[in-house]
Amino acid sequence: MYGLILAGGSGSRLWPLSRELYPKQLLNIQNSESLLQSTFLRLKDVIPSDNIISMTGVKHVSNVRYQLSSLCENPLVLSEPISKNTAPAIVLGAKFIAETSKSDPVILVVPSDHSIKDVKLFSQTVKEGEILAEQGYIVTFGVKPSYPETGYGYINTSEVKLFDGFKVNKFVEKPDFETAQKYLQEGNYYWNSGIFMFKASVLLEEASKKAPEIYDKLKNFDFTKSSEIPYTEFDKMPAISIDYAIMEKSDKIALVALKSDWNDLGSWKSIYDVSKKDENGNVKIGHVIDEGSKNSFVYSSSKLVATIGLEDIVLVETEDAILACKSDKTQEVKKIYDTLKKQNDNTHKVHKTVYRPWGYYTVLGEGKGFLTKMIHVNPGQKLSVQSHEHRSEHWVVLEGKAKVVLEGKDLFLSPGHSVDIPVKAIHSLQNPYEEDLKIVEVQKGDLLIEEDIIRYEDMYGRV
Amino acid sequence: MYGLILAGGSGSRLWPLSRELYPKQLLNIQNSESLLQSTFLRLKDVIPSDNIISMTGVKHVSNVRYQLSSLCENPLVLSEPISKNTAPAIVLGAKFIAETSKSDPVILVVPSDHSIKDVKLFSQTVKEGEILAEQGYIVTFGVKPSYPETGYGYINTSEVKLFDGFKVNKFVEKPDFETAQKYLQEGNYYWNSGIFMFKASVLLEEASKKAPEIYDKLKNFDFTKSSEIPYTEFDKMPAISIDYAIMEKSDKIALVALKSDWNDLGSWKSIYDVSKKDENGNVKIGHVIDEGSKNSFVYSSSKLVATIGLEDIVLVETEDAILACKSDKTQEVKKIYDTLKKQNDNTHKVHKTVYRPWGYYTVLGEGKGFLTKMIHVNPGQKLSVQSHEHRSEHWVVLEGKAKVVLEGKDLFLSPGHSVDIPVKAIHSLQNPYEEDLKIVEVQKGDLLIEEDIIRYEDMYGRV
Repeated sequence: MYGLILAGGSGSRLWPLSRELYPKQLLNIQNSESLLQSTFLRLKDVIPSDNIISMTGVKHVSNVRYQLSSLCENPLVLSEPISKNTAPAIVLGAKFIAETSKSDPVILVVPSDHSIKDVKLFSQTVKEGEILAEQGYIVTFGVKPSYPETGYGYINTSEVKLFDGFKVNKFVEKPDFETAQKYLQEGNYYWNSGIFMFKASVLLEEASKKAPEIYDKLKNFDFTKSSEIPYTEFDKMPAISIDYAIMEKSDKIALVALKSDWNDLGSWKSIYDVSKKDENGNVKIGHVIDEGSKNSFVYSSSKLVATIGLEDIVLVETEDAILACKSDKTQEVKKIYDTLKKQNDNTHKVHKTVYRPWGYYTVLGEGKGFLTKMIHVNPGQKLSVQSHEHRSEHWVVLEGKAKVVLEGKDLFLSPGHSVDIPVKAIHSLQNPYEEDLKIVEVQKGDLLIEEDIIRYEDMYGRV
Repeated sequence: MYGLILAGGSGSRLWPLSRELYPKQLLNIQNSESLLQSTFLRLKDVIPSDNIISMTGVKHVSNVRYQLSSLCENPLVLSEPISKNTAPAIVLGAKFIAETSKSDPVILVVPSDHSIKDVKLFSQTVKEGEILAEQGYIVTFGVKPSYPETGYGYINTSEVKLFDGFKVNKFVEKPDFETAQKYLQEGNYYWNSGIFMFKASVLLEEASKKAPEIYDKLKNFDFTKSSEIPYTEFDKMPAISIDYAIMEKSDKIALVALKSDWNDLGSWKSIYDVSKKDENGNVKIGHVIDEGSKNSFVYSSSKLVATIGLEDIVLVETEDAILACKSDKTQEVKKIYDTLKKQNDNTHKVHKTVYRPWGYYTVLGEGKGFLTKMIHVNPGQKLSVQSHEHRSEHWVVLEGKAKVVLEGKDLFLSPGHSVDIPVKAIHSLQNPYEEDLKIVEVQKGDLLIEEDIIRYEDMYGRV
């Protein structure tokens, strides 16, 4: 069996903890693992690590690879050069697996940002689905509704029993509250979890029939030669979900009910719902002091958050943005996100802490003509060989040791040592050692933007 | 006429914007001036600048002097070496004014942290009070209650009319709601504003009769020789309010009703009450984005604060702490403050930005063995000549120019220049120029605390 983890995602719904450049699947809100890492570990229970492929947007590849490399040796991460929704990703994923494995395996497709705590029951359900997938069905895993949710799509099953599942009648859109109540009563409606399973050949054949606008483009891709997805070819594919493109049109769909718990963590409210609460119904994460609040979710990433007498409030503190929201309005976070995007306010996009393939940096302070960062370089990593047209830099080593290459000369710096990098000087910061390296960088100049960089060499292919 | 501004105050009620070391009177919440500065400007309308004396705790002297020096040439600030409530401060203030002016003037005593917007009406009331003070009365300015407030003390007047005021019957404690309602109906009850007026000789004579435990200590102070209040002598005075010590016992008290607006800004709720609201009843200060909130107060000092669907919430963001509070619970902020104090959490005491006589610094970041600050030195100021036993420092100039004296040698640094200050080296940072100076300081060492400082010379008398 193969696994295909869909690790795209825009990061809008759990803003300000998620950002466009650090979306939900990369977060670890409750566990020591991120949602992506939990997803990988869950699949590992039934699928060998080497058979698990992740697909993500080009902006997230380095972060996804970094997170997964703590769980397996060489995580296979495919990069979507542009966002095209799920259908192109899944069809290409199936083609990739079929071509590179030179076989026709069963493929389990899972979103990377859901919460499923009971791995055993999940694996058991997957095994049941596998039998139907082997028989030529496209298996969708449905969640038995526990209340009339209006935020999910539903799947209606027929009475035709198929081993541990049912034949699917139809997919239905997000219902209004009354309809959702009706679905709940009728009993043969399930929430669409976005988890699927199929034989590669079955999906590709259904794509050829139901989604020729995707299938016809497949010949442009040859994964026997390279695992890269070329931008211009991928861009010719329509942006469409697998549900619209294939599921709703196919008569080969079976549904197996998920035995485990499941939560799509699609809003702060749903994070609150799956979190462990104290005796007053509060969830307090981080440095939080409370006086008499009830049923509230308070998340502090770094600063002290004091709350008094709150009821049904979600409060999330990050380094550069704070969200305070009535619990039943958390789906409106997307509005804030869109407003910020429209206003060109970067707060929707990046944190003050920005993750890079070599580590991360945090903006400490900025003002007219200067900008101060704390730079954290992971062991064995190096920043690109680069120069800047508009700024000088001054580095002070705080922890660990640094190798600095400046105009061809090697310098070795220990804590307390500093070095000046003049404007236009070609330089590189490296950490060839086994400990983390932390430096303070003070930038000075008339134009202090990330884009002022000329890269000459880069171990992460960013030249 | 003389003015005595009481600028003590602990900073607990408007936490996290106020702190023990930066209390309410120093804040500018709505205006470009701080409450202290507004108070000074208000008095200037009726009293010459040179006749206005401020009294504050020793910890606040430099900040109080710094704020007032933008309003007059040589602000006279007396330093209380320890907090002893209002009676010792007012009695000593009266003695100070009588001795240094060699006269027996009328003295107007005002708290420094109240809001009075209509200066004209305030001055008019003061002039009315002056006539009674000249006649030998201790005049207290009362506020006509507009609702049954339970958080203030009340003053009950008799029917004896005295020019524009009344003779006072008695001072009464904070009432319960029913009693407050009764007071409101009866009409001859006023809120105690804490503003008083008297001839110096009258107050001192009343002190001799009603508060001998204070009066008897007065001989320990000789302000003809020095304006300093010696700690050991001051410490012998009891800590007691002027209301308890004198007002409630004296039969020379008259009340003049304050004609102007008045608000003691004793809680975030009262700040909200006096603030201008938008059409949804919200007050939004700083970088705030809202979706559908009502009757809420949202204050951002630096970060983006996004609010959705809040009702009757006070939200205050500062660099290192966030408060979220139901509007009718803002008096419980003191509980949070006390909890922090008990936990030895410095967040009750200092901001990340700390004000010093020479300017201020902001902690940018800290970690194991290092601490990074942005230091802002005002023009013409210098830090003390000092050394540290446990840390080295590295300075990078960002803006302005610095004179650094290091082991007796003068260095002159421009933006981009840096210097290393080794452990134990005697050094001083100076800004003898007319522009602000900003530097980044990186401290390194095994013990990074403010107390690790040996001062050799200091222009602010801190050696």
